[in-house]
Amino acid sequence: MKIDAVDLFYLSMPEVTTDADGSQDALLVRVRVGPHTGWGECEASPLTCIASWIAPMSHGACRPVQESVLGQTVDDPSDIARIAALLRYNSMDLLQAPHTFSGIEIALWDALGQRLGEPVYHLLGYKAAHPKLAYASQLFGATPDETGRLAQAARDAGFRAVKFGWVGFGRGSVADDEAHLEAARAGLGGEGRLLIDAGQIFAEDVAAAAMRLPGLARAGAVWLEEPFRADALAAYGALARQGSRVRLAGGEGCHSAAMARNLIDFGGVGFVQIDTGRIGGIGPAKEVADYAVAKGVTFVNHTFTSHLALSASLQPYAGLADHEIAEYPFAPCDLATAITVNHILPDAEGRIRLPGAPGLGMRVNPPALRPYLRDVAISVDGRTLHRTPDLAD
Amino acid sequence: MKIDAVDLFYLSMPEVTTDADGSQDALLVRVRVGPHTGWGECEASPLTCIASWIAPMSHGACRPVQESVLGQTVDDPSDIARIAALLRYNSMDLLQAPHTFSGIEIALWDALGQRLGEPVYHLLGYKAAHPKLAYASQLFGATPDETGRLAQAARDAGFRAVKFGWVGFGRGSVADDEAHLEAARAGLGGEGRLLIDAGQIFAEDVAAAAMRLPGLARAGAVWLEEPFRADALAAYGALARQGSRVRLAGGEGCHSAAMARNLIDFGGVGFVQIDTGRIGGIGPAKEVADYAVAKGVTFVNHTFTSHLALSASLQPYAGLADHEIAEYPFAPCDLATAITVNHILPDAEGRIRLPGAPGLGMRVNPPALRPYLRDVAISVDGRTLHRTPDLAD
Repeated sequence: MKIDAVDLFYLSMPEVTTDADGSQDALLVRVRVGPHTGWGECEASPLTCIASWIAPMSHGACRPVQESVLGQTVDDPSDIARIAALLRYNSMDLLQAPHTFSGIEIALWDALGQRLGEPVYHLLGYKAAHPKLAYASQLFGATPDETGRLAQAARDAGFRAVKFGWVGFGRGSVADDEAHLEAARAGLGGEGRLLIDAGQIFAEDVAAAAMRLPGLARAGAVWLEEPFRADALAAYGALARQGSRVRLAGGEGCHSAAMARNLIDFGGVGFVQIDTGRIGGIGPAKEVADYAVAKGVTFVNHTFTSHLALSASLQPYAGLADHEIAEYPFAPCDLATAITVNHILPDAEGRIRLPGAPGLGMRVNPPALRPYLRDVAISVDGRTLHRTPDLAD
Repeated sequence: MKIDAVDLFYLSMPEVTTDADGSQDALLVRVRVGPHTGWGECEASPLTCIASWIAPMSHGACRPVQESVLGQTVDDPSDIARIAALLRYNSMDLLQAPHTFSGIEIALWDALGQRLGEPVYHLLGYKAAHPKLAYASQLFGATPDETGRLAQAARDAGFRAVKFGWVGFGRGSVADDEAHLEAARAGLGGEGRLLIDAGQIFAEDVAAAAMRLPGLARAGAVWLEEPFRADALAAYGALARQGSRVRLAGGEGCHSAAMARNLIDFGGVGFVQIDTGRIGGIGPAKEVADYAVAKGVTFVNHTFTSHLALSASLQPYAGLADHEIAEYPFAPCDLATAITVNHILPDAEGRIRLPGAPGLGMRVNPPALRPYLRDVAISVDGRTLHRTPDLAD
């Protein structure tokens, strides 16, 4: 089956704010492979990805993404890996390429699963998709009281695990952070799993991050996520060697499987968090999951956007029963909810299950997306290289 | 002094081929800082960079590059570092951002040097710019005979060091590669320094790369460059531990100083090759040079394009007398030559010297560039976000 068309749709909320909320826009990808339509989503800057898809070639190792994709055949999973390898070589010097390809790769799995009548996790070699414990991912409150109320609300909504991140954490004093941690634990109750996301606030400052470890341990935090920049391996390694029972988590910034392996090998993380919308799709994420298993590290998805992205992000570790925590978009923007007709909802125990339908098992809802569609036009020397395609299904 | 304007110019040859020749196009950057005009160049996909400069914000950590640059003040080198740190945080999730910012950062150094009446290497803390031994960077011939003739030609042109890369190397048999290596050594003569660039051909296959080490050693190669993908640290480390006297070189793919430090710390390279047009500019490149000195690793520029890019790439290690090899664009496209009025030419001993004039010391030649200027237009919802600016100086 030939890849006949790849269409990129830039969707966004009417107003986008500086909130650390990645669900405010989306780059939705539709592929046509023979008679099948697959959908995927990039967790990336939509306009920049669109440009990288059609940018005129700079030289043999800086070609636009489309050149490695259009016209290729996809008959089994190895074809997707072959296209990914081709892209890595052809677009070696095009930095944005892995972000752009991520949504395309996901859509190719979706189409292939439909063709073969199998959910993607079967194509990855998993017999079954185990339920995952959804954690509600949200931002810290402006005050400890607000953080406590947010934790309580998540618990009341049935979540057994909650992650707080960003806003003030790491910007003020250690005592300020500890007040938030205590409030979060109080709101969540003694049993709930508490996860903390530092959002790279410490850059490479190991001492500043280390000062937070005792408070995190007292609050019973499971992990400290992204204390440092994504590529600050030495800092990660140094903090990991402090031996706190709070493990380090990271990996959402990885744009290749090798980067994630480096974070495991040299950064000493205990949890590796992969966004299939950034790492290059489901294939490299599965490669990281396999490596995590081999190294005794726990794989976790990174998902802050739609349920299409959620399905894609759960596939790579669907069959790993012991890797049971999953990030769950707790309060996404309307756009992210509108992307799919069906949704992956937590059960009474706060657990989520992948659909068993072929492909990603999610039904994209084009008519509902028209209000969010942005009209993009890119031309070079008067020649139109991109114009927003028709979003009819 | 305020950054009043940043203008991006996409230049290209009339025809761009799949040759591994990065000089076929360019993204030239002009900054206006108070009364001063600075110039820089990105070694990156021009259209993709332009999109990342103006892309509508996706969320607080995925903002367009312009948001961290325009209106900022630049009065001393620390201001440039402050803007870089701001960008890293604001555009954490915009993968292309470091490539885009590289040319801007270089242009800011150029403008600041003019304002302070100092060459950039003085602003970096170097008292003098030591001459560097230019190596002619070129592609292998199609046959060993042609490789030999190319080596001879470089030697006849006065070069004491030659690098061959790409085309067939690593794609055929070990014997094929060795025939090219022997021919290169014969053409270059016994004294010349021979450098080999594998262009990531072995991906992560340590054994395949290791099979080439004896032939490289016999030909007296100084280094084996980029045997693996830029982020394949474990593969680099494993090959380095083989203990060949041929050292590993790499780093051109680094888009942050941390990535280069990782390559030194975990990849065991003996030479770290930095392109200021990719790593984020001159500041992070200087950071890598300092780190290389501390770790006993040799810093080398990566430059395959214009003499504006060459000046920028030499500044970060200008004062390091022992780090004496420099990549020199041997046969760039006309466009790359046309970018500057003045050029950095090897002397009779094959050595090159940075100009002592303020800033980068290079005079950009706008009138000569008009034939290469591409007219780019990007709009979203009918609103023009980018239109190629006027290239009058």
